[in-house]
Amino acid sequence: MAKVICSETLDFFLFDVFDANQVLEFDRFKEYDKTSIELFFQSIRDIAENELLPIYSKMDKEKAYFRDGKVHVLPELGKAVRAIADSGIIGALDSFENGGIQLPYCITNTALSVLYAANPNATPYATLTQGAANLISAFGSQELKDKYLEKMFSWEWQGTMALTEPEAGSSLAHIISEATLLEDGNYNIKGQKIYISAGDHDQTENIIHLLLARIKGAPKGTKGISLFVVPKFLPEDEALKDNDVLTAGIYGKMGQKGYTAAHLMFGEHGKCKGYLVGEANKGLNYMFQMMNEARIGTGTLAMATASAAYHCSLKYAKERIQGSHPDKKETQVPIIEHADVRRMLLSQKAFVEGSIGLITYCSLLKDISEFGPSENRKNAHLLLELLTPVVKSYCAEQGFQSVNLAMQVLGGAGYTDDFPIEQYLRDTRVNSIYEGTTTIHGMDLLGRKIPLENGLALKLFQKEIETTLKEAFAIEETREMAALLTDQLKGFEKVLQNHFRILKTSGPRHFLADATLFLELFSLITIAWIWLKAIVKLTENKEERNEKFVKSKLTTAKFFFDYELIKSAGLIQKMSQEKEILTSSIDSSIFD
Amino acid sequence: MAKVICSETLDFFLFDVFDANQVLEFDRFKEYDKTSIELFFQSIRDIAENELLPIYSKMDKEKAYFRDGKVHVLPELGKAVRAIADSGIIGALDSFENGGIQLPYCITNTALSVLYAANPNATPYATLTQGAANLISAFGSQELKDKYLEKMFSWEWQGTMALTEPEAGSSLAHIISEATLLEDGNYNIKGQKIYISAGDHDQTENIIHLLLARIKGAPKGTKGISLFVVPKFLPEDEALKDNDVLTAGIYGKMGQKGYTAAHLMFGEHGKCKGYLVGEANKGLNYMFQMMNEARIGTGTLAMATASAAYHCSLKYAKERIQGSHPDKKETQVPIIEHADVRRMLLSQKAFVEGSIGLITYCSLLKDISEFGPSENRKNAHLLLELLTPVVKSYCAEQGFQSVNLAMQVLGGAGYTDDFPIEQYLRDTRVNSIYEGTTTIHGMDLLGRKIPLENGLALKLFQKEIETTLKEAFAIEETREMAALLTDQLKGFEKVLQNHFRILKTSGPRHFLADATLFLELFSLITIAWIWLKAIVKLTENKEERNEKFVKSKLTTAKFFFDYELIKSAGLIQKMSQEKEILTSSIDSSIFD
Repeated sequence: MAKVICSETLDFFLFDVFDANQVLEFDRFKEYDKTSIELFFQSIRDIAENELLPIYSKMDKEKAYFRDGKVHVLPELGKAVRAIADSGIIGALDSFENGGIQLPYCITNTALSVLYAANPNATPYATLTQGAANLISAFGSQELKDKYLEKMFSWEWQGTMALTEPEAGSSLAHIISEATLLEDGNYNIKGQKIYISAGDHDQTENIIHLLLARIKGAPKGTKGISLFVVPKFLPEDEALKDNDVLTAGIYGKMGQKGYTAAHLMFGEHGKCKGYLVGEANKGLNYMFQMMNEARIGTGTLAMATASAAYHCSLKYAKERIQGSHPDKKETQVPIIEHADVRRMLLSQKAFVEGSIGLITYCSLLKDISEFGPSENRKNAHLLLELLTPVVKSYCAEQGFQSVNLAMQVLGGAGYTDDFPIEQYLRDTRVNSIYEGTTTIHGMDLLGRKIPLENGLALKLFQKEIETTLKEAFAIEETREMAALLTDQLKGFEKVLQNHFRILKTSGPRHFLADATLFLELFSLITIAWIWLKAIVKLTENKEERNEKFVKSKLTTAKFFFDYELIKSAGLIQKMSQEKEILTSSIDSSIFD
Repeated sequence: MAKVICSETLDFFLFDVFDANQVLEFDRFKEYDKTSIELFFQSIRDIAENELLPIYSKMDKEKAYFRDGKVHVLPELGKAVRAIADSGIIGALDSFENGGIQLPYCITNTALSVLYAANPNATPYATLTQGAANLISAFGSQELKDKYLEKMFSWEWQGTMALTEPEAGSSLAHIISEATLLEDGNYNIKGQKIYISAGDHDQTENIIHLLLARIKGAPKGTKGISLFVVPKFLPEDEALKDNDVLTAGIYGKMGQKGYTAAHLMFGEHGKCKGYLVGEANKGLNYMFQMMNEARIGTGTLAMATASAAYHCSLKYAKERIQGSHPDKKETQVPIIEHADVRRMLLSQKAFVEGSIGLITYCSLLKDISEFGPSENRKNAHLLLELLTPVVKSYCAEQGFQSVNLAMQVLGGAGYTDDFPIEQYLRDTRVNSIYEGTTTIHGMDLLGRKIPLENGLALKLFQKEIETTLKEAFAIEETREMAALLTDQLKGFEKVLQNHFRILKTSGPRHFLADATLFLELFSLITIAWIWLKAIVKLTENKEERNEKFVKSKLTTAKFFFDYELIKSAGLIQKMSQEKEILTSSIDSSIFD
């Protein structure tokens, strides 16, 4: 099949750079070893190749549609997602006891990278179900678990996250869907939800919504939101009974045309039943405990899409003969010989592989924070909290730019649907919008994560970087990169001090005004660290990888420092200025 | 109607900043004065509002299709483009003698900005016809002019540019379409052309291709290419006779779904007749004399699309209530109040208006170079040559990023087709591909335009900048900006010297390796100069514009210097390094 992701690179970051072997030692995962994991990965690659990749373009060209109150998707989608379910991945994170396969998150997410790269529109039907099931599993009653988990793990029933409402997008505090207590202890649900991914389709017999609503009389704001299981059909006495969940329509979108986003109406006829998950008024709290996972997932999706686009553009660049070298005009060459085409390829490669590194690191932190040695859990959790806005937004924003470069490599051909790149570009665009826009993540990083426990998360991260720098300064190949990163860290420190000065003198509105730029800078430094650590590990264990692999990684790292990390210079200059911040100081009338 | 472009800003750059009044004094344009120009603009705005904007979305949703050998477009398109033709704009640049309306280019292109902003997919049917007709007018025989111009000016006949072939995209030297001399002195044409915009459709009775081909026995390479008029139907004795031009199909594309790109087969049955334009083997030469125009046109299209997207996102930002200030969490505000939304709006505004300035300047240079006082023509031409790759590529690349920000302002709504932004984003993407990719323009700037006449073009431009800087240092409002630009110019000088050192020590391949980055840096400096000049002119003539306009422009200029121009820091750092350039030094095996 067409190559969509590099297995050796996934393996390299997972086992060489970030040592996933340690995770396999944890009690929770003792059933697994490297051999069984490799077998699992092989089954995942088979599904990617045989079930997912073949229908990617078709899901777009024969897009989902809404007719007579029903949503229809490409019929082949059902078989493909059931194949994903058969691999065990929907229940991958859950315990054996609950019917899951108790796999480490870092392994699960690496497998998902492969599935996403083969088909970023089909795979989310499975991962959304995973997320919904995990909420029931973590916070639901035994009754809810018994009723729902098995059918969701096997994807007989689709799961969704029903959060967004017309007046509550980025601001979930303003949710107005209402839950009224019934005599049987359950709830009557009434409200509208919009943009609900996989919110309706014809490939599963039921759809289970994990829905946020406000119990009548609950406190205002975020502290009055509860989480409910609201199935499309109520499972009662072996039958499925209508539960008054109507689909008003699906959205026409730039991309993801085979991955539906529905507008749903709950309780239009007053007969929609919901089941409280956990305690009342803790819904947002529960949801946010799953958010790191969802956000790493979005980053993974964006990275994987860019990976598929990279490999498509690389293949084209090797095959397409056009133009000559400026000093040898008589002979035409494959376009991969042109320096600017290489720049566009290396920029993609540096993004994709650096992101794989970051995603792998975050996944590992999640495993350690939950199942690692107890003395390591807190620090891993803090680091994960710090890096979640980075992994989500860097991958989403730069993933889009990366696919954009893939298109540019193909020129006119890339703009046509003769190649999948125009679809990748349309599909990946939404990643910087959902699971929190980039703006939200900038504010999360600077406003919440940096100040977390008096800056402890940041200090831990800086310590990680310092350790790597020390090693890198001792190695010939990495010395120059280490010096560059040290410079950027000094600049970052200035930016940080300037921001806390602004907070003190001008308040939080001005402090947070450039948060998106702050996130951009912090991301560049983070990825530079990932690359530096990767090369340090690679030079320490050169014999484990072949010479070509070593050379490839070293060149890509150098490219990142030379062409990408330099973008921090302008950001540092901008954000260390001692003047008022334009965007928070002007009035809105100047835009007309 | 929905606002898509700001008329006062167009007027400001045209008459206040770049003094189009001088052009109206030229002999060629003596029939016009500011009043008649204003009446012309009013008629253009009416067409934009009544004919073009209403069908923009419909052209996408009811896209062009190919059936039974014929291309069908939205039926309303015909009426809309004929309305454009009725304004005189297809023959705008041609002489009264040839049936044109002899309008200055700067006026014509300002009018086109308005039409493009209202409908970037319908307007090109007219402008492509303009370009094709201008080639006939400039280089064709009186017979060709008599036969074709009138019908093209009225858009009874569509015009196209038939350049690209399967094996000749960026490298036109490799065109293989063949022309064989016939007994009547005309030619038999045989060949395939791909991606031909407006190459076929059902809204005009004929389609006139300006086609590049090689006369049998002509020299190899660029010096053996000739230009032909090849009509779809031969106009003979008041009738239209089939000319063996077949449409193989149209391309499925990411955007521009109502603006066709056709795959055409000429002379499949050996019966396709072509008429030589001008002399044999000078085809590419003729084509390139029209290229500056075509490239300014592409920049204008990209700017105008971004302008329409900006105004859409601005309207949304004012109306959408969501979220609160970090220091006043109890009240929700319109999202335009959020600093990061303002950043995204100002970034668009700074791009759109800075580009209007650059486009206006280039348009004016074109008028001066052709019809200005004879002592000014050469310098104007040199400046235009220098700035053409900038206006084309900066507008195309940053225009795409600008529309991308517009989408981000709308969040999830922007990703749906409830708003036109997702279409703008899809449509505008191709601008950095056609009329020369960004890579090609980078090499054109650094490899051809900078060295032009021993750097004379660059020297002239630097002199323009110095004049503005001198004025700017004398004005309170612009002093800080002038100092910033001076710094960047020093950095640019270092980059330039480093590049000529590389040329000397390592040759042209390495010299040109970072040409795209060089173009990016040069563009930032150019736009900074445009903004600086605009503010200087504005403060000199404050009384002519109202206070709000002055404040708006000053804030936007400051934003550009503060948030955009800083990007040059990293570019300067990268390109003034005395080390070998990675992308031209590695081997291609590292990409796997």
